[in-house]
Amino acid sequence: MSKFLKQIHVNTLPGYEVVISDGLIKSCGEWLHKYFLTSCKIAVISDSTVGPLYLKDVVDSLTTWNFMVSVYTFEAGESRKNFTTLSNILEYLAAERLTRSDCVIALGGGVVGDMAGFAAACYLRGIRYIQMPTTMLAAVDSSVGGKTAIDLRAGKNLAGAFLQPSAVLCDLDCLKSLPRSVLLGGIAEAVKTGVLCDETLFSLFENGNISTDYGEIIARCVAYKAGVVERDEREQGERKLLNLGHTIGHAIEKCSGYTTPHGQAVAAGLAIIARSAERLSWTLEPIGNRITTCLAELGLPVVTRYTAEALADAALSDKKRSGEEITLVIPKKIGLCELKKIPVSELLPVIEAGLGV
Amino acid sequence: MSKFLKQIHVNTLPGYEVVISDGLIKSCGEWLHKYFLTSCKIAVISDSTVGPLYLKDVVDSLTTWNFMVSVYTFEAGESRKNFTTLSNILEYLAAERLTRSDCVIALGGGVVGDMAGFAAACYLRGIRYIQMPTTMLAAVDSSVGGKTAIDLRAGKNLAGAFLQPSAVLCDLDCLKSLPRSVLLGGIAEAVKTGVLCDETLFSLFENGNISTDYGEIIARCVAYKAGVVERDEREQGERKLLNLGHTIGHAIEKCSGYTTPHGQAVAAGLAIIARSAERLSWTLEPIGNRITTCLAELGLPVVTRYTAEALADAALSDKKRSGEEITLVIPKKIGLCELKKIPVSELLPVIEAGLGV
Repeated sequence: MSKFLKQIHVNTLPGYEVVISDGLIKSCGEWLHKYFLTSCKIAVISDSTVGPLYLKDVVDSLTTWNFMVSVYTFEAGESRKNFTTLSNILEYLAAERLTRSDCVIALGGGVVGDMAGFAAACYLRGIRYIQMPTTMLAAVDSSVGGKTAIDLRAGKNLAGAFLQPSAVLCDLDCLKSLPRSVLLGGIAEAVKTGVLCDETLFSLFENGNISTDYGEIIARCVAYKAGVVERDEREQGERKLLNLGHTIGHAIEKCSGYTTPHGQAVAAGLAIIARSAERLSWTLEPIGNRITTCLAELGLPVVTRYTAEALADAALSDKKRSGEEITLVIPKKIGLCELKKIPVSELLPVIEAGLGV
Repeated sequence: MSKFLKQIHVNTLPGYEVVISDGLIKSCGEWLHKYFLTSCKIAVISDSTVGPLYLKDVVDSLTTWNFMVSVYTFEAGESRKNFTTLSNILEYLAAERLTRSDCVIALGGGVVGDMAGFAAACYLRGIRYIQMPTTMLAAVDSSVGGKTAIDLRAGKNLAGAFLQPSAVLCDLDCLKSLPRSVLLGGIAEAVKTGVLCDETLFSLFENGNISTDYGEIIARCVAYKAGVVERDEREQGERKLLNLGHTIGHAIEKCSGYTTPHGQAVAAGLAIIARSAERLSWTLEPIGNRITTCLAELGLPVVTRYTAEALADAALSDKKRSGEEITLVIPKKIGLCELKKIPVSELLPVIEAGLGV
């Protein structure tokens, strides 16, 4: 019997369900069979960290419900989110002779979801895929919304596709065994969503006791993101708000040679832009200190060792740049952020203003 | 002054124009500036065959009209339509810092169009691109309709995306200098379109004198294809008709290790399926001999050296397979073809029936 069960509909075209509950790893075959998929081949894609933990249960459940299952795992890590791995996955799908009526499952964290999703988007110009997030970051953010990608040498997520999943099955049991730092990486994205969404979500993090509310945190983050994605699937406008903290966050990741995890980089990026916004008088209430304190008390970084010059240079190869302008997401108060286009030449002073605590 | 000028609107969402005329290589900057693009960066992607012929004129024209132009060329040939070249193109676009408001031009034949289009579809999850076809095959077929792709080791065009171009500029002058075999490769696709479309188009090829009517042939092929693509952009139904001759054609290419050019393989595939359809009493009029004779008199192949078994095996890894069925395109008469789903086990006897002349 599930202790927590929430189902959120994402009203894209076509739409899909995000199921958040306990025990989904062991019951995924039944869920897919009953609600989402007729009998077909399924290629489960996972990595060397997640595969040993959950692949057996997933394959058993799918097989029990008459899916024809094959499995592809790759070495875990952001450094594998590249063309070599993508190419290997696609050759694997072809060798297994998956057709347009078949399906991919992404079983893992953000790297697996981004890459397996992109493989599904490319293979035969697009087949269906299901997200089964196993990290907090994937659960609250990357598994929903249809952004798929790999990294280029020039930067993170620079090649990819928009393709919505056919369903998202988020098993809360997976989160219990996460190392603290991996869990916190996801919490950083959830705090970001709290700043965008409202006081109710943000206050879940301010008391510092997050461990009892995973289901509630994920459901609130997914519901907020679903609304944004429904209104702006292709990131022409409102969806850019979800990049709060990410311009500087991505620059930190890039400067670190992708050794700083995404969530931790976003936390620092969020703290920096919040302080900067306040010091430049762009905010409606004093949130620089509030956001910094919240992140720091959770154990997330709020500063970076890189110089403003290095960060600005890295940020200017980011997707958020458009011609000679770059769009920043500015927090005005908790529950209200806005997009601000600035000339690329003004990015450096903005970053400088936010660097010191 | 242009001798021939035809403009065909493709009513997809968003729609775009296909311009067929003389002198477009030298006037592309003016066309793009006046009708299609505001000032932006343009990365022109071409190959080692086409680049030396036309890049200078294209760059001069674009620069004159205030576009910021950069150029990337790769070694010509189907064997380069792979992940390595795609990855190099994407890193190049990133190094040039193209943004979502910038644009790619595909200057070349089908390989350049497929690959530059796929690069545009992937880069930053999609930026605009313009097709400038320089071969008959690209002009009559591959530059229109938004199919982009690269080959996998497992087969042709197995990875790709649907992304319509923002415009197609087809310069008839490019066709005058094509080697006969390259020209004929495109004519094979045009004959295929004639079989699908009507007697008027097909009869342009039956008199054997094709050289005077390039503009007319291309305009008729594009107009037919535009209608199909408008009604079924993502190949859920009707668009599959455009694969006439391609199931066996792709199998021939694959069996040859991609040394048989696409158009020549399609010609043989078209002849084989036409003879097979007639011998299996699927046709409404005796078209097997008529299509075979037309292709042969043009100098196109109508037989293959590969066995039915080898072709069937190669065809079963094709995109046109769906689960345990494969969809064939059967010519009933000139101007009428239909889709026919058969169990994969029946493909072999169908191919066998069409092999002998």
